[in-house]
Amino acid sequence: MKVLVLNCGSSSLKYQLIDMSNEEVLCIGLVERIGIDGSILKQEKDGVEGKLVVEQPMNNHQDAIKLVLEAVVDTKFGGVKEISEVEAVGHRVVHGGEKFAGSVLITDDVMGALQECVELAPLHNPANIMGIEACEAILPGVKMVGVFDTAFHQTMPKESYLYGLPHELYTKYGVRRYGFHGTSHRYVSERAAAMLGKNIEDTKIITCHLGNGASIAAIDGGKCVDTSMGFTPLEGLIMGTRCGDIDAAILPFLMEKEGLDAKGLSDLMNKKSGVYGMTGISSDFRDIEDGAKSGNELAQVALKAYVQKVKKYIGSYAAEMNGVDAVVFTAGVGENGIGMRADIASNMEFLGMKLDKEANNVRGKERVISTEDSNVKILLIPTNEELVIARDTLALVK
Amino acid sequence: MKVLVLNCGSSSLKYQLIDMSNEEVLCIGLVERIGIDGSILKQEKDGVEGKLVVEQPMNNHQDAIKLVLEAVVDTKFGGVKEISEVEAVGHRVVHGGEKFAGSVLITDDVMGALQECVELAPLHNPANIMGIEACEAILPGVKMVGVFDTAFHQTMPKESYLYGLPHELYTKYGVRRYGFHGTSHRYVSERAAAMLGKNIEDTKIITCHLGNGASIAAIDGGKCVDTSMGFTPLEGLIMGTRCGDIDAAILPFLMEKEGLDAKGLSDLMNKKSGVYGMTGISSDFRDIEDGAKSGNELAQVALKAYVQKVKKYIGSYAAEMNGVDAVVFTAGVGENGIGMRADIASNMEFLGMKLDKEANNVRGKERVISTEDSNVKILLIPTNEELVIARDTLALVK
Repeated sequence: MKVLVLNCGSSSLKYQLIDMSNEEVLCIGLVERIGIDGSILKQEKDGVEGKLVVEQPMNNHQDAIKLVLEAVVDTKFGGVKEISEVEAVGHRVVHGGEKFAGSVLITDDVMGALQECVELAPLHNPANIMGIEACEAILPGVKMVGVFDTAFHQTMPKESYLYGLPHELYTKYGVRRYGFHGTSHRYVSERAAAMLGKNIEDTKIITCHLGNGASIAAIDGGKCVDTSMGFTPLEGLIMGTRCGDIDAAILPFLMEKEGLDAKGLSDLMNKKSGVYGMTGISSDFRDIEDGAKSGNELAQVALKAYVQKVKKYIGSYAAEMNGVDAVVFTAGVGENGIGMRADIASNMEFLGMKLDKEANNVRGKERVISTEDSNVKILLIPTNEELVIARDTLALVK
Repeated sequence: MKVLVLNCGSSSLKYQLIDMSNEEVLCIGLVERIGIDGSILKQEKDGVEGKLVVEQPMNNHQDAIKLVLEAVVDTKFGGVKEISEVEAVGHRVVHGGEKFAGSVLITDDVMGALQECVELAPLHNPANIMGIEACEAILPGVKMVGVFDTAFHQTMPKESYLYGLPHELYTKYGVRRYGFHGTSHRYVSERAAAMLGKNIEDTKIITCHLGNGASIAAIDGGKCVDTSMGFTPLEGLIMGTRCGDIDAAILPFLMEKEGLDAKGLSDLMNKKSGVYGMTGISSDFRDIEDGAKSGNELAQVALKAYVQKVKKYIGSYAAEMNGVDAVVFTAGVGENGIGMRADIASNMEFLGMKLDKEANNVRGKERVISTEDSNVKILLIPTNEELVIARDTLALVK
């Protein structure tokens, strides 16, 4: 079966067409500027030089998906001959609230539940819903599956997901920790158990998904018991443009000093903070590293703060699970940041963590990067959320 | 020398008169409802049965301090015969900003600097300043010392005290982590080093000040390197009525849902949250424990969340220091919460922490409560902020 995997953002759309007989990616593409001047689709196919580029106005996600379906049957860059070969579509959905602890076949009931989750993810879920509706219109009868960023974290116990806030904020509005990047944490923790040669039920794993957005999860016996992102993807680590953990009392202070309203505060914390806000340089960690190397003190401090925060979460989750068997690095910075991984894993002997510097000198390859005698294994595992979405889709439509 | 130690709140005042020749507390008292109907002073003297109670209108801190000075010369409950024997006054001051990394003799310059710190601690510093001014008026010529809650934490490195927020919020408004309870963290960490029989320079200590307000500090070589309270005393642990760490993005969400303004948000997080808000029962941990024992599920979850949070901070600070020699419990819950200490120290073998259940079965006594073979010593150390204030006062006025 060929499965189309769609990840719809508000003005963008990433996709992969995967042949589930061998899990081969047949083609991979990206549509940008949907509903904006300069809409563009780019698609690549492994083993074929160059890329397909289509510049054409796209007013909405339906226009975009129509173009995607033309692209995937492209004779040179496509993955199938006929669109009828695409037998199922898997959608990434950001927020499943408490309704979805796993992936689901899309039905009218599910669409209703997704609508109810919009207020929890007003920036993300509407785009996901648009993507699903557009597919329904263009590919009637093709089965679709929703795979949620939040689902894997639904196993957290109450003491992990309830905040120290009035309980009625939870019952009335669903204010609690949800966690995100669940598909990635799930994938790399399963791979980690395989690399350890253990049943996942017998493992304690800490997964560090370090990208431009970043989160860490504590996974005990294959179940998420805690994660650093919370009610929204703002909480936790310092990110590219997001502040992560702060004293929430800073907000009322800034409301009075700067006259910020809800949107102003939200923009400040989500778009103007993180290493970008700390340095004024960039949200890209490579630029921050360059800045630090060339002596920029703010960049040096931002990197130290970033690294310290990751170390602290590793320590806190080790405490929560009373130990850890493996620490996993994944996503952009986690897969490619050789120096960042080295800094995070250094001075962690108290935990039994010892990095193998030579093994660590690699980008984007699945491997053990701790020394033979390291009690805690350190693993580099490239994430593959699309593959998980395709697998879940296959499992549910069969 | 006899030193009067004053801790002025907005409508209350705690005091002790201490004879520094032997560090004996000569008398100890509390004034409540200053500037409110029903002003009352209560004073006790060790070894004397009963207490002195004075109910008399007090319009302001000057009225209150006048009464305190009468009380300390009381023939039965007082500590000195003549007020002239009080040779110095030590004041607890909540917020010293970045200006004070240690205690200081009060001068006009210091008073100016304290005024500048008011915007960082609008609820606390004005009361501290009133107390100092009242003493100046009533005891002209008597030397006074300010001892700051924030001072001990001024050794934190930038990566610990800077948030992932735009740097200009730090340069413009001083938005950073300050930390509080510094006098207590300092006192118990010094006692801990003594109990370990080590120079404090050679120790890594985590101090858990668990009271109705609560904070944890990581103290490496006698210097604070991190602490859980932040820009304000809101951040960090779940407290009696304070929420501690939350996803700050919850605030803009609540502003839109509930129409809360800065004061509404601040009140919600500081006064209506914590174990009180989580349970609706009480801000007193003993009531929450009773609730949990009698089967109240919210109380059970609140306790679990509280304990988990402390454990996580211990783990994170162990990671920050690459190990820990001793974990110290102090303040109300830390000194008296036998079950709470047991829960926090349980399932922490990964760190080499083993509680001695029998030794732990005690309230408010300085002792080692870990087993002989515990790599990390667990210490119960009653705090004594007043003694630190008196000692600093003596040292600076001599």
